[in-house]
Order: sequence, then structure tokens, then C-alpha cells
Amino acid sequence: MFRHTRKLQYNAKPDRPDPLMARRLQEALGGQWGETTGMMSYLSQGWSSTGDEKYKDLLLDTGTEEIGHVEMISTMIGYLLEGAPIHASEAELKNDPSLAAMMSGMDPEHGLVHGMTASLNNPNGAAWNAGYVTSSGNLVADMRFNVVRESEARLQVSRLYYMTKDEGVRDMLKFLLARETQHQLQFMEAQKELEDKYGVIVPGDMGDIEHSQFAHTIMNFSDGEGSREFEGKVAKDGHKFEYQENPEAMGGVPKTKPADPRFKNNQG
Amino acid sequence: MFRHTRKLQYNAKPDRPDPLMARRLQEALGGQWGETTGMMSYLSQGWSSTGDEKYKDLLLDTGTEEIGHVEMISTMIGYLLEGAPIHASEAELKNDPSLAAMMSGMDPEHGLVHGMTASLNNPNGAAWNAGYVTSSGNLVADMRFNVVRESEARLQVSRLYYMTKDEGVRDMLKFLLARETQHQLQFMEAQKELEDKYGVIVPGDMGDIEHSQFAHTIMNFSDGEGSREFEGKVAKDGHKFEYQENPEAMGGVPKTKPADPRFKNNQG
Amino acid sequence: MFRHTRKLQYNAKPDRPDPLMARRLQEALGGQWGETTGMMSYLSQGWSSTGDEKYKDLLLDTGTEEIGHVEMISTMIGYLLEGAPIHASEAELKNDPSLAAMMSGMDPEHGLVHGMTASLNNPNGAAWNAGYVTSSGNLVADMRFNVVRESEARLQVSRLYYMTKDEGVRDMLKFLLARETQHQLQFMEAQKELEDKYGVIVPGDMGDIEHSQFAHTIMNFSDGEGSREFEGKVAKDGHKFEYQENPEAMGGVPKTKPADPRFKNNQG
Amino acid sequence: MFRHTRKLQYNAKPDRPDPLMARRLQEALGGQWGETTGMMSYLSQGWSSTGDEKYKDLLLDTGTEEIGHVEMISTMIGYLLEGAPIHASEAELKNDPSLAAMMSGMDPEHGLVHGMTASLNNPNGAAWNAGYVTSSGNLVADMRFNVVRESEARLQVSRLYYMTKDEGVRDMLKFLLARETQHQLQFMEAQKELEDKYGVIVPGDMGDIEHSQFAHTIMNFSDGEGSREFEGKVAKDGHKFEYQENPEAMGGVPKTKPADPRFKNNQG
Amino acid sequence: MFRHTRKLQYNAKPDRPDPLMARRLQEALGGQWGETTGMMSYLSQGWSSTGDEKYKDLLLDTGTEEIGHVEMISTMIGYLLEGAPIHASEAELKNDPSLAAMMSGMDPEHGLVHGMTASLNNPNGAAWNAGYVTSSGNLVADMRFNVVRESEARLQVSRLYYMTKDEGVRDMLKFLLARETQHQLQFMEAQKELEDKYGVIVPGDMGDIEHSQFAHTIMNFSDGEGSREFEGKVAKDGHKFEYQENPEAMGGVPKTKPADPRFKNNQG
Amino acid sequence: MFRHTRKLQYNAKPDRPDPLMARRLQEALGGQWGETTGMMSYLSQGWSSTGDEKYKDLLLDTGTEEIGHVEMISTMIGYLLEGAPIHASEAELKNDPSLAAMMSGMDPEHGLVHGMTASLNNPNGAAWNAGYVTSSGNLVADMRFNVVRESEARLQVSRLYYMTKDEGVRDMLKFLLARETQHQLQFMEAQKELEDKYGVIVPGDMGDIEHSQFAHTIMNFSDGEGSREFEGKVAKDGHKFEYQENPEAMGGVPKTKPADPRFKNNQG
Repeated sequence: MFRHTRKLQYNAKPDRPDPLMARRLQEALGGQWGETTGMMSYLSQGWSSTGDEKYKDLLLDTGTEEIGHVEMISTMIGYLLEGAPIHASEAELKNDPSLAAMMSGMDPEHGLVHGMTASLNNPNGAAWNAGYVTSSGNLVADMRFNVVRESEARLQVSRLYYMTKDEGVRDMLKFLLARETQHQLQFMEAQKELEDKYGVIVPGDMGDIEHSQFAHTIMNFSDGEGSREFEGKVAKDGHKFEYQENPEAMGGVPKTKPADPRFKNNQG
Repeated sequence: MFRHTRKLQYNAKPDRPDPLMARRLQEALGGQWGETTGMMSYLSQGWSSTGDEKYKDLLLDTGTEEIGHVEMISTMIGYLLEGAPIHASEAELKNDPSLAAMMSGMDPEHGLVHGMTASLNNPNGAAWNAGYVTSSGNLVADMRFNVVRESEARLQVSRLYYMTKDEGVRDMLKFLLARETQHQLQFMEAQKELEDKYGVIVPGDMGDIEHSQFAHTIMNFSDGEGSREFEGKVAKDGHKFEYQENPEAMGGVPKTKPADPRFKNNQG
Repeated sequence: MFRHTRKLQYNAKPDRPDPLMARRLQEALGGQWGETTGMMSYLSQGWSSTGDEKYKDLLLDTGTEEIGHVEMISTMIGYLLEGAPIHASEAELKNDPSLAAMMSGMDPEHGLVHGMTASLNNPNGAAWNAGYVTSSGNLVADMRFNVVRESEARLQVSRLYYMTKDEGVRDMLKFLLARETQHQLQFMEAQKELEDKYGVIVPGDMGDIEHSQFAHTIMNFSDGEGSREFEGKVAKDGHKFEYQENPEAMGGVPKTKPADPRFKNNQG
Repeated sequence: MFRHTRKLQYNAKPDRPDPLMARRLQEALGGQWGETTGMMSYLSQGWSSTGDEKYKDLLLDTGTEEIGHVEMISTMIGYLLEGAPIHASEAELKNDPSLAAMMSGMDPEHGLVHGMTASLNNPNGAAWNAGYVTSSGNLVADMRFNVVRESEARLQVSRLYYMTKDEGVRDMLKFLLARETQHQLQFMEAQKELEDKYGVIVPGDMGDIEHSQFAHTIMNFSDGEGSREFEGKVAKDGHKFEYQENPEAMGGVPKTKPADPRFKNNQG
Repeated sequence: MFRHTRKLQYNAKPDRPDPLMARRLQEALGGQWGETTGMMSYLSQGWSSTGDEKYKDLLLDTGTEEIGHVEMISTMIGYLLEGAPIHASEAELKNDPSLAAMMSGMDPEHGLVHGMTASLNNPNGAAWNAGYVTSSGNLVADMRFNVVRESEARLQVSRLYYMTKDEGVRDMLKFLLARETQHQLQFMEAQKELEDKYGVIVPGDMGDIEHSQFAHTIMNFSDGEGSREFEGKVAKDGHKFEYQENPEAMGGVPKTKPADPRFKNNQG
Repeated sequence: MFRHTRKLQYNAKPDRPDPLMARRLQEALGGQWGETTGMMSYLSQGWSSTGDEKYKDLLLDTGTEEIGHVEMISTMIGYLLEGAPIHASEAELKNDPSLAAMMSGMDPEHGLVHGMTASLNNPNGAAWNAGYVTSSGNLVADMRFNVVRESEARLQVSRLYYMTKDEGVRDMLKFLLARETQHQLQFMEAQKELEDKYGVIVPGDMGDIEHSQFAHTIMNFSDGEGSREFEGKVAKDGHKFEYQENPEAMGGVPKTKPADPRFKNNQG
């Protein structure tokens, strides 16, 4: 069960409105790697966790924090859209190229659909969807996913940082950068502990089943020579990488049978 | 530019048809973490790469291999659907519960839309989409993503393994398990080399910008005590994790202004 | 069965072309609450209706009218795109900020994909989809939905009105505003009649089954005091609202069991 | 900012596992009208609200409660999937039609993708998406939407109730039925207060702009006679409904001009 | 503007209910190539048409007919779902494998979301979306698309025919097969007339611009020999096909420059 | 199995960067009719083909070529984004309308998500999805689809041609125009051969089953007179088209029964 405090976790107030920046920030809200993806992935993983409380609690704490990040970004977008105009005349556009850029570059649905408040879309208006979420039941895999979520998200936040000079926006982004440092590190720590227990290959305990003769071979499918440089290096599981210059097609030419004629497959 | 060999990379022929298994294998073809996601992510990353040929080539080699995996799974699904019926009478269903299970459990679009051949959907019929792909321009982040792709994919392949007793299907899965071991290891190696160069936090060089006082604190947002266990551990960047039992709401209560009345936002 | 008249239900001709307005009007055509959503929701509800002809007929009449509204907006968009340029040189852009705004603010797919005619997308290019449609079999719920469809649509039409000064566009919007007044009112009337018959809570007849001790309590999950203001007010079903300042977590700490080890769920 | 309690808001434990019921409950989690839609709509509306604290707080309290409902249903699905098998032999299927029904009727991604834990999809595996959310800035419209959300959701919960005999599942559903009664009533109350202030037509203040001669006419587009029954009734705004048996096509035959020949529109 | 007749264009009544067939028929309603795709494509093309009334009218007549087909299939699905049960006990499932097949094979959302009426999804529950629609402004291309729409749709209808023995369902399908014959033929005729006018290559008038040395060469990218069989055949534009056994990579190795360092692209 | 050559099939290098053109080219990469659709459709059809090697090989050769086209366009987009700025000040925008147009007209996700490299979206940021792909098992239908794919794609490439003056971009487009001429012609040839064998109506062999009295009638559902012009023309199957001025509604008024009351369908 959850409770809410009206105060934000951290400042989310720009120095001045900027509808173009509002649009860009939608990536952090409704994009593939945005805060909603973090929130729903960590909460889902936490709720599904059946094992060690340490990881379950870490996931739920972080997921709960992310709801507050969604709230902060949503709030920031609202501030950035303050006073945004509903209309500009052709004369106004002609006289003010930066106004023209704003009118044509802002998200048309911010005003039309949301009355100049945040949406749950990315900057191109694509609706956030659960295809961005991962919760597999395997915590090694999922902790790795969480590290990626925080990496891609922090990368985007760093780009957002350079896309504005507004000190208020930057203040919030500096906070998010720090939290995403922490979240990268904590999920790396959990990943490491779980790898120590279950092995570095996900999932563990399949090594005797897999065709292990293909498990340490870099196969070259090109005239590029770059991947040969991995040859002989020691992989994380202690084996050396081999290099196969000309991987053979081992599987034969497939030949499936035609379907029941009532399926009306005409194949020549 | 690409070339094609009619022979498959490895065997992809079941001992006998099984439309339910055909449906499950769609996950490896058109699912969030399936081979199409690997193929399009690695190729996109490789094509976008502007730096070291070693990584560019590794990505393109692996991406090219994955097209062949898409081909193998597509072929396997075709074999598993051989001879699948278009109709069963009520009497037949009553007499044969396993036939009944097959008729109601198989993907109805396999026959209806594809004439008993593979689709590019997951087992629930959701179309593969590019929201599953990642190509960010930052290779540390993307190599981490690639490790996750191979981890989640290998996890699903291991589950598929236990969902069938068919030795032909298992033969192919054992090969895929091995290749996904290799791909996990090679991307881990690349990740490690890139982390050594650019730092473990993605992206590097933002540490002086972020609000670093928040960068190593586990914040507790619950009555769970589990995440406290990380307190004092040494994070991958050498700092120790701190623990904040009661994180403060530092941001004040937000209060945005109403929009232009022509937006017709009535708020009470 | 349907028939078509070449004449439009009402005027749909602007005074002059305006590709930016064409883009905005896509919301009314292919957006979440646009005319296509109305058309497909009312027709689906009407076709599915098994009861009183009065409601079935109202739904089908209104759904049929909406096809004509889709036609009008599609036509208007076509007119607004007349003469839109396929190319502007850098020099032209430099000399004319309003041309620059048009070239960068118009929907790039209007020309590229549709040859300067309407699409079935919203202004951000998201394809209309049936996830916007509601047809539940319960007419009280669906009439309420229909009132919302007309409310959100009329809200957007009113915003479109202020986004243009073109008298031709406004003429059409004034007609749509009026029809959406009528449709709000007629669906409210139907809703009221159905509520009188089946009760104000959807669905009726579950009151003896629900845990009624929780059915009139405003639960406070925050440090906000606003929702307390509903305390003691008389709800539409005649009961008074109670207020619970500190709702208890009644459900215990969940503890699900690990899955079969073959699912490879590693949880610490 | 949010905080989390490990205890659930209410019981969410079935008497025994039932993977088919787990699948059905996904509707309440990841479906168009499920708890996630409630959670994200109310939170978004609350964060965007710029006016009376009473409504803002009500929205945020209810949105916060809904996070806890997502948690409960997620937990319940986890319990219902306990012990679900990864494989059944053909012989087992032949001997046990109810096992066969389970193997073919359960969500194949529950095991394959999520290791027998909940997803964020509906029972057909369609990913939850933000196209289900509404947050328009106009509280009259949005409160109406919220009443619909609670109506459609409660309707689905009532159907879920009759789809199981499990007393544990029913206990949770009885609680949800009651909360959805409360939420319908509270949003109706807010809707009424806002209508009293801003008028029953959304948005208010457009009546002098719309072509009012079309604002109270039921137009008949069919040979059905049902909608005539509304003729003469008094609409919620005090006007009487008129009935037009044969609505005229007032708009003329449209004739748009061909596009620039470089668009290559060949039209005959 | 449109009008509606309560009578259906043709019979749409099964001999007896069959929820599994209801699910399959959703393909014809909400699938990629179903009637909704026909309806929205032909209407969009017709409304966008700026040229010869002959084609515009053909498109609008056929689009209008398709609304009636959507209506027929929607009605048929409603009949097929009549009397479908909301629950079956485990004992009932054990005793009746065909009941078990029905309970697990039917669309769970037919009951749960739609109260046993039609949805606008395909049989796997994927929502119909406008990404299935084509309206390009070029009638040669679009008439070709329309022929495909009718071909794929008739193919699916023929498969549906063999998936049932119900004479009522078959009666409707026989009608649809005939109409789809007509629609294939009429669009072929229009296609042919337009090709005669504008040329067989879409779009016309680009032949002097394209690099024509590559315009009649079958390029072999495989060790398959099959495509060589086209060598020397006369193409529809009168040229002979050439065959290139070993197509050269003419484009050089690409080498793009790194982005601005503020994008944080680390590439090795 | 596939192999890769680092050299591109053809030149893909612009004379100078142009982020707006980069955005437009996304249509050819990730749009409904772009190269990815060609690649995945032809490969899927080829892998699923069970018949004549001639067609199977043609499909796989062309599908393999298309992977190289995806590569070329991806590369071109990378070049066009070279040097694109991450930020422009308001002063810079005011002074340079063409910079303003670029900043607001370019795809915001090119920088933010992809570090100024290509995505797998269309120009409006909609993710490519498998709902664009067709592979039905019936080669007549699918060859027709392939002709459409090449027609719509070539149409878009021709429009792209006129949207730029850059000779490097045009060089690549001229090559694609030529290849799409070839692909139209080769698929037409295959289509013709297959029609000669299986008949012009897809699927063949249903003529005795369909209600043939409706198979050659143009039905007029409007007051338009245009479609009458097809009357008496000889259809491709040798029959003459008839014209029905006033098609009758033959199907009666539908009347489905209410569902089980536990579905809570209230219908008046």
C-alpha cells in the first residue's frame, strides 16, 4: 500500500517557461527508458519476487522513488508549459522566428489534448506501453536490465542537460543524474551478488545441456576483421574466446511440406 | 550488403509436429527479447557506430548471425505446424482431449492468416515492434543492453527447453543456448573494456555536474528493512553506499498557473 | 446496411489553405477522442445491443452521423493541404519565418505518405486504434462513456476553434460544437433513464455482494487535506460519505512460493 | 513523493491456484479499464490540476490508492500461478481434460516471459498503453471520464466474480467492488459540483459560438424509429429535444484540387 | 453523408452458437486485412480523390458497402456468442473435453470486456489500427493495394469456410466470397485503366531520373539458383530481365563522424 | 544463413548534412511501406514457401537485398545528422529562421534517444511494427502484396527525391527508384505466372462455393453515378460487370438474445 506527500522529492521548477523543453522532457516521462519504465519494472519485479527480502525491498524502495520522479517530471513539464500561446498570427510568426520555432516545434497535443499539461507520451507522441517493461522472475537477468534502464535514462538526462541553459531545469536534472548514478551502482551490486551465487551466464545450470562446443566461439559473418581482436581473450566465465573465420552452415536446406489444401496456400 | 546461403546455420527440424510448441516458439521470433530484437538492435548499433572497428564489426557479425537465427526459428515453426488440422468436429473433440487442447491452444492466426506458417508476433499475437530495439549511440549503455538481450533470450530458450520433450526441437535450443552463452560473454567483454575506458557510470564525465551528495545513498521509501543491507558496501565506483531511513521531501508543494482560458481548463 | 450521399452534412471548406491547421485537425479524425472513436463506439454498441430499440436506434443514428463527420474533417484537411509545397530552399526559409514554421511544423507524412491528403492518425502521427473504443454490453456504463467521448471531443473542438482565425474552418467547428452539445445531452438523457431503471452504481445488483463497509469511505492516502471536504456530503445513492484519515493496510505481507525450478527464477 | 507499506491494502490470496483465473485477472491489471488506467489517469490529472485543492487532493488520494490495487492484483495473480506446470505429456492431456484446458487456456507468456508471475498486459497479451489514459486539463470532462473508468472497471470485476468460485479471489473482488462504488460516487459528486459551476455542457462558454440551431436536434439517419422517442423530452440544459426525420445534407459536394504533380498523385 | 437501414445486406445468422468460431471471425472484423481495413481504406481514398468521378465513386460505393460488412460480421459474432457460459466447474471440464476446449479456446475478453458481443480486435486480441490502412493519393498504387486487400481477405474467408460446418455461417461466407470476387475484379479493372494511362511502374514519369541501368536486373544474393529462371523473360514494361550472378557492392565502406561530445556517444 | 560485406550495395552519402531530410528518410526505413517492411515480408514469405524453388529463391534474394537497403538508408541518415547541434540559443533562433526551422522540425529523438543516429521509426516517431508485414502462404496474394510494397515505396522515394536538392541523397534515391522498378516488374511477372496457374481470383477453386450471383455486380450505395461506368465492361475473368442501382438489404433485421444476466448487460 502506498502513501503520498504533497511535497516533491526535489525541486522541479524552471526559471522560465519553454514549451520545446517541455516536449523533450516527455522522453523522461513516457519514453522507452523513462521514469515510468523504471517505476513499473521495479515495482513489478518487486511484487513478483519470492526470495531474499533484500532484493525485494530494494526493488520496491526504488520503484516507489520512481513514482516520485514521474511526479517531478510531470510537474516540471507543467511549469514549462505555463503561458504557452494557443494561437499566433502569420504576422507574429513572420516577425519572430523564435516564436515560429516554438509554435511549430512544440507538441501539438500538449495544448489540444492536455490543455498545456503533461502527457504520458514520448516527445514524438508515442504512448508509453508495457512493452518497455521487464519482469522475468530471474533476478540476475532483471538486475542487468535495471542497470541498463538507469544507464539509458541517465544518458538521456545528460543530453537533456545540454539542451537547455535554464538553471531550474538543470537543477532537477543534476538531482536525477545523481540518483541514476546511485541506482546504477546499487543494481550492479545486486547483480554481482546474484552472479556470485548463480553464475555469470543467465540462466545458470544449463551448461551441461547446451551444445557447449559453440559456447565460446566468435563467429565471423563478414569481411570485417574487427571481431577477431577478441580471439584468445579470457571470457568472464574463465574460458578463452575462439574465432571462427568461416562459420559453416551446418543445418541443411529446409524443406517443409505444403499445408492442407483447404488453407489455399498456392506456392507455385 | 548481405548474402544468403540456403543452408541453415544449424539444425531446425523437430521429430514431429506440435502446433502448441510452434506457438510458444513465436516468443523467440517476435517477442520483446526474441531474435528479431537482437538482429535489429545489433545491426542498428553497428551501422550507427562511428568508432573502433572492433566493436562495430562484433555488432555487425552478431547481427548477421541473428538473421540466421530468425531464419532457423521461422523454419522450425513451419515444421511444427506441418499437418495441423483446419477443423475438428465436436465428436472428435469429445473423444480426444489432447486434440481439443491443441485446437483451442494453438495460435488461431497461424492457420487463418499465415496458412500454417510462422508470423512475426509473440505467442499472444502481439506484433513485434521497434520499441523493443535499443541503439543509443553510447556503446557502454548499449553493450549492457545487449548482455540483457542475450540473458532474457537465453532464459526464455531454457524455459522452452523444458516445455518440450521433442529431441529435434531440443537440439536447436541447445545450439541457441550455447550461442547465447557466447553472446553474453562477448558483450560482457566489450562492456568491460569500454567501462575501463569511459567509467562504470553511464555516461561518464557528468560526475562534476550531478548533485553528488545524492549519488551514493540508498533511500528507504518503505517499512521494509531489506535495502538497509546494502549500507556500507563498496559500490563499483569505489564509494560506500549510505542509507537514508527517512528521505526528506525536499521539493516543496508545486503550484502551476492556470492555462490561457481559451484552453477551457476548468479546475474548480 | 448503409448508403452514401455525395453532399456533406455541413460545410467543410476553409477560406484558405493552412497545413499546420490540417495537422491539428487530425486529432478530431484519428485521435483518442476523435470522430472515428465516436463512430466505431456507437456503431459497435448499437450492433451489440439486444434490448430496447430506443437506445439501439439512437446509437446507430448517431454512429451513422459520425461517419459523416469523419468525412467532413477528412475533406477539410484535404482543402487545408491544397497547394502545400513539397520543397523550400534554405534561402526561402531564411527569408520567411512563417514559411519555415510551416515546413517544419506540418506533418511530414501528409505529403510523403498521403500526397497531401488526410491520414487516420492523430497530429503526432500515432495511428488510430481500437483501444480507444468502448462497447461493454452494459448500456449505463457505455452511455456514460459516450457522454465523455462527446465532452472530450467538444473540448478539443473548442481549442481548435481558438487555434485558427479562418472563418471557413470556424464555420465547420461551430457546427460540430452544436452537434456535440446535442450528443452530450441525448446520451445524458439515455444515461439518466437507464440509471433510473438499473441504479446509479454500475453494475446494479452487486450491492449485497460487495464488502459494503468500504463503499462510502473517502480514504486519505496523503498529507493533503482537500478530500476531507467531501466528508458528510450525500452521495448520489443517498448514503453519506465518511472520511478515513489513516486507512489501515488490512492485507498482510504477501509471500508467494517460488516457481518450478525449471522456470529458472533466481530470487536471491 | 510516495512511501510504501509492505502490507497490502486488503487480502489478495486465493484458496488455491488457478492459472486460467490468473489470466482473466490481467484485465484488471493491464486492460483498457484496469487499475493501471485508473492509477495513471488520476495521478496525471492530479499533478496537472491548477485549481481547487479539494479536487487535486481527491485525485491524488485515489490515484495513490490505485497503486495499491495494482499491487494487490499483481500479488493475487502470483498466488494463482503457484505451482503451475511447465509441461504436460500427451498422455497426461488425454487423461485429464481439465489439465488440457488449463495448459491450452493459460497465458503462454506467464511462464515463458515472466516465470509464472504477473505481466502488465491484458488477458490477450496486449501491452497496457497510455492511449487508455485521459488527462485533459478540464475537470468536468475528466471527472466524467473517471466515473466511466470506475463503471467499466466495476463491471469487469463483477464478471470476474462470476467466473470463479474461489472464496479467496471473491473476497478481494468484493473489496474492489466496494471501492469502485465509492469511487463512482465521489467522482459523480465532484462532477456535479463542477457542473453546477461551469455548466452541464463541456466545455462551458461556447454556447454563443456554436451554431445553436443544431444543438438540440436528434437527427434520424435510419429507417429505425427508436430515436424519435426522445422527441420533446427536456434535456439536462432545460431545452427540449427536437426530432428531424430527414436531415438534409447541407454541405455541398466537395471538390479539392490536385496536389503539386511532384507528389505523383494519379487520380484518373 | 450516410444513412442506415436496419436490415443487413445479407444473412448473418448461424445455425447454432459457437464461441470458437466467433473468435476466428474477429479476423474478418478487426484483423490486418479485415472489413474495417477495407472500409477505412476505400473511404479514405475516395474522400481524398481529386480526379475522375468514376474512381472516386467506385471507392465510396465499395467503402459504404464495407460498413455493411462490418455490421454483418459484428452481428454474426453476436449470434455465435449467444448463451456462452460465464463459468464451468472443474467437474464439468473433466466430463466434457469439448466444453473444456471452448472455455480455454474462446476469447476471454468477449465475455469479460464486451459481455459476449463483438470487439474490434483480431482473434488474438490485438486492436485494429490505422497502420493497416493505405491512402496514398496515387490511385494506381492504391488500386493495387485494394486488390491485395480483397485477395488476402477472400483467402481468410475461404479458410474460415473450412473451419466450420455451420450452414448459417457458411451462407454468409459464400456471400462474402462472391463480393470479394467482385471487388477484386473491379479494382483490377480500375488498376488496368489507370496503368494504361500512367504506365505500369508506380509512379510514372520517373524513368528518366532513376539509374535505369539497375532497373531490369535480377540480383542474386544467394547460392540459390531459382531466380535465374526469370532471366530473359519479358517484363511487363517490355524490357527483358537480366540476371546478375554476383552483384557487386558498389558503395564503399561508410564512415560517419562522431556526434558532438555532449551527446555522450562512446564508441570505443 | 547470412553473410555481410562492409561495403554498401550503392552510394549512401549526402553532399551535406540535413537533419530535416534525415527525419523524412525515416519513412523509407521504419515506415509502413519502407525497406524493413520489404525485408521482413519477403524473407518471411521465402522461409515459409513450400513450393517452387523459383519463387522461394526470388523472395529470399530480394529480401536479402532489402537488408542492404535498410543498411544504406540507415547510413545515409547517419551522414545527414552529422554535426547536428544539441542546442541553439534564443538569439540564434531569432537571427536564423532556417536554424529555427531545423531545431523545431527535426526529430527530437534523433539526438535525445539515438545520439544523432537513425532510429527504426517513421518520421513521426511511430515504431515500425510487424502489422505492416504480410506472409499468408498464398503466393498469388503475396506477390500482389509485394507489387504494392514496391509501388508505395517507390512513390515515397519519388516524393523524397523532390524534397531535396542534395545530389548525394538524390544519387541514392535514383538507385532505389531503379531497384523498385525491377522489384515491381519481377513480382508482377511471378504474379502473372501464378495467376495463369491458379486463376486470377484469390484463392482459386472457391467459385463453386461462393454465391456466384453476387460475384460480378457493382453495387451502387450512393447518389454518385460514377461506378455505373464499369457496367458492361469485361472483367479479368471474362465475365461482364453488371450494375445494381439500388441494392436490396437482403438480410433482415438482426435480433440477438441477451447474455447470461451475470454478464450484467443492461440494455434498457
